[in-house]
Amino acid sequence: MNMNTREKPAHTPMDQFPSAGRELLVGGIPLERLVDRVGQTPFYAYDRELLTRRVAELRAALPASIKLHYAMKANPMPAVVSHMARLVDGIDVASGGELRVALDSGADPHEISFAGPGKRHAELRQAVAAGILINIESFREVAELAAIRQATGLPARVAVRVNPDFELKGSGMKMGGGPKQFGVDAEQVPELLAEIGKAGLAFEGFHLFAGSQNLRPEAIVEAQRKCFELALRLAESAPAPVKFLNLGGGFGIPYFPGEQHLDLSSIGANLAAIAAEAGEKMPHAQIVIELGRYLVGEAGIYVTKVLDRKVSRGHVFLVVDGGLHHHLSASGNFGQVIRKNYPVTIGNRMDQPAAESVSVVGPLCTPLDLLADKMNLAHAEPGDLVVIFQSGAYGATASPRGFLSQPDLLEVLV
Amino acid sequence: MNMNTREKPAHTPMDQFPSAGRELLVGGIPLERLVDRVGQTPFYAYDRELLTRRVAELRAALPASIKLHYAMKANPMPAVVSHMARLVDGIDVASGGELRVALDSGADPHEISFAGPGKRHAELRQAVAAGILINIESFREVAELAAIRQATGLPARVAVRVNPDFELKGSGMKMGGGPKQFGVDAEQVPELLAEIGKAGLAFEGFHLFAGSQNLRPEAIVEAQRKCFELALRLAESAPAPVKFLNLGGGFGIPYFPGEQHLDLSSIGANLAAIAAEAGEKMPHAQIVIELGRYLVGEAGIYVTKVLDRKVSRGHVFLVVDGGLHHHLSASGNFGQVIRKNYPVTIGNRMDQPAAESVSVVGPLCTPLDLLADKMNLAHAEPGDLVVIFQSGAYGATASPRGFLSQPDLLEVLV
Repeated sequence: MNMNTREKPAHTPMDQFPSAGRELLVGGIPLERLVDRVGQTPFYAYDRELLTRRVAELRAALPASIKLHYAMKANPMPAVVSHMARLVDGIDVASGGELRVALDSGADPHEISFAGPGKRHAELRQAVAAGILINIESFREVAELAAIRQATGLPARVAVRVNPDFELKGSGMKMGGGPKQFGVDAEQVPELLAEIGKAGLAFEGFHLFAGSQNLRPEAIVEAQRKCFELALRLAESAPAPVKFLNLGGGFGIPYFPGEQHLDLSSIGANLAAIAAEAGEKMPHAQIVIELGRYLVGEAGIYVTKVLDRKVSRGHVFLVVDGGLHHHLSASGNFGQVIRKNYPVTIGNRMDQPAAESVSVVGPLCTPLDLLADKMNLAHAEPGDLVVIFQSGAYGATASPRGFLSQPDLLEVLV
Repeated sequence: MNMNTREKPAHTPMDQFPSAGRELLVGGIPLERLVDRVGQTPFYAYDRELLTRRVAELRAALPASIKLHYAMKANPMPAVVSHMARLVDGIDVASGGELRVALDSGADPHEISFAGPGKRHAELRQAVAAGILINIESFREVAELAAIRQATGLPARVAVRVNPDFELKGSGMKMGGGPKQFGVDAEQVPELLAEIGKAGLAFEGFHLFAGSQNLRPEAIVEAQRKCFELALRLAESAPAPVKFLNLGGGFGIPYFPGEQHLDLSSIGANLAAIAAEAGEKMPHAQIVIELGRYLVGEAGIYVTKVLDRKVSRGHVFLVVDGGLHHHLSASGNFGQVIRKNYPVTIGNRMDQPAAESVSVVGPLCTPLDLLADKMNLAHAEPGDLVVIFQSGAYGATASPRGFLSQPDLLEVLV
């Protein structure tokens, strides 16, 4: 932080969405026309072209041999998953419900993988029947899969999800290192591999995932390098050659003031070095990077209409028809310790300067229903459209949509 | 806090649910039988008898003239609302969706009221058509109701929701004082009352609500007294006598270690004094206390089954089939700054002592999915039932149920 300046940190510009005149464009469509086309507010809109472009940019920045998977938990809207399935090399699912959507999308079952610390028996059976790869996270799953294999006569394709003995530094969420519910501790993996071999499961590789929403390239580089080295060590105990090595993801996107887009150059160089080394030491392995939020987060917006403009004791409140029940993360109530504003704009007044400090609040009877706290926005009146950027991931499905029995949201892929 | 003892604060005993042998009883039914009857885990179960008993205890503690309303946002399950409608004097709704359930429950429309900072035009029209009382929170609503009155020929029954010029001290959530989106600032109310008179709306009274989830009786007493005095002052500008005075609620329940049940004695005495004074100064007024969480919160449990028992680096994780997608508050991710454990037990091992420190985690691929962090519980194995107490309010509807496309929960009233 530069201590010589008193300027408050700002949001990085949301220039992935252009404007025409006073209106934001989504997939080339002026926002007010889009509202009419959707038929209601509030809604989420995801921009098809931005999804395509993000995958292309990522492929250009990473070595060609690296496979790209979409972690659909970030946005499981069926139309989004279908679009992504045509762009990426595989889909990662986190439940039997997601698996159904992935299969509907036309993704090749061979390139679908399933991770989760608490897979039900029925979900494991569903996965075996679909012929997808199951990331084993517990000794229990070996026994269950052996029984399913016997009952169905089908092969059980498995990889081992490893809880590494290190963590991803500077990560929004730590998912490896120390005691964790995810995966099997690295030091227990040789024993697990022996059991997999005895049970006759089809071992295919490893999944290592150290954390998520990281904006520090050097931390991601270090984690990928360590994950790769750990996988090389663990592969010595494997009952079959490694065909699949998922090094996780963790690529972050900028949400809050002062955050910048992730620089991929060092990550690409590191993955090139890993790919070259893997060519010698793990010659049958596909190296996979699994990304959710990074692929879809910046391509989505949440659109809500101003119902009322209230001035209370000198402060302006824009009361809108959407709120935390649709976008919990933007309200700052989903696991955040300190509430910060997402980037927000008045989507039908893009040509007007920020004119006043306002709070954008939803219709719920709770002070938690706050979408923007004392933000400088263009002057807005009832009927105007508040847009929350960076809303393509963990929005619609990560929100308490039944709260206070408000009308549900819609989602569109434009 | 007693600094002489090193004992950690404990949860207050959850003795509203008895046990028989090794099983918790819900509505007199042993937990495992209840699981069979419901047909799945996870589920919420609400105990009918506990709801009835809570209302009776509250009536015994408060003066007979005080009316009791149920704020159904705390738990809008239709069966619960129907049960409550027969016990209380009125229902408070927070949306058009809640209004439909309240009407279905058989509640007298005359005793239903509607509050919310962002009521849509269609909701206001729905409220007028139903003949319920609308708590006006904005000048805009006066104009909209005047238009609806003209269009429909129906009277528009209104009260004024006031943003007081003080706050409820020690409240879990502050909903009054300072600039707020709720209600109309006390100092603007005389002007609003004049507009209500001019618009020909049927003025009936005031709604004042200073905060919620408060465990300090002296703070509640002070807020009720100040709300009453403010209402007396505001009534001087009213276009008609006050028939309805809602002094809010804010009664808390103990969730976390060290918290105790609210002592109602001083609150009852204070309301008796207010009722006596109101008898002179506001002779036509019903005094209403509006409670949600306090009426239903302790009557509900969340039940989830252990899928796996994992030991990672010496720490035991019970992986269960439910999680934050069903019970966001218990995971500590709904507006809480510091995560604390709800009271939790192993519901089919009630006769066994707390044997080990475990973490209860859900099936989601996120470290946020934590239902109990290093709690001392009876030894549990897969198939055992984890019960989270104090789950009757803001559980099922305040959770992101679509998250990771997990199977949905069920709710039963037993």
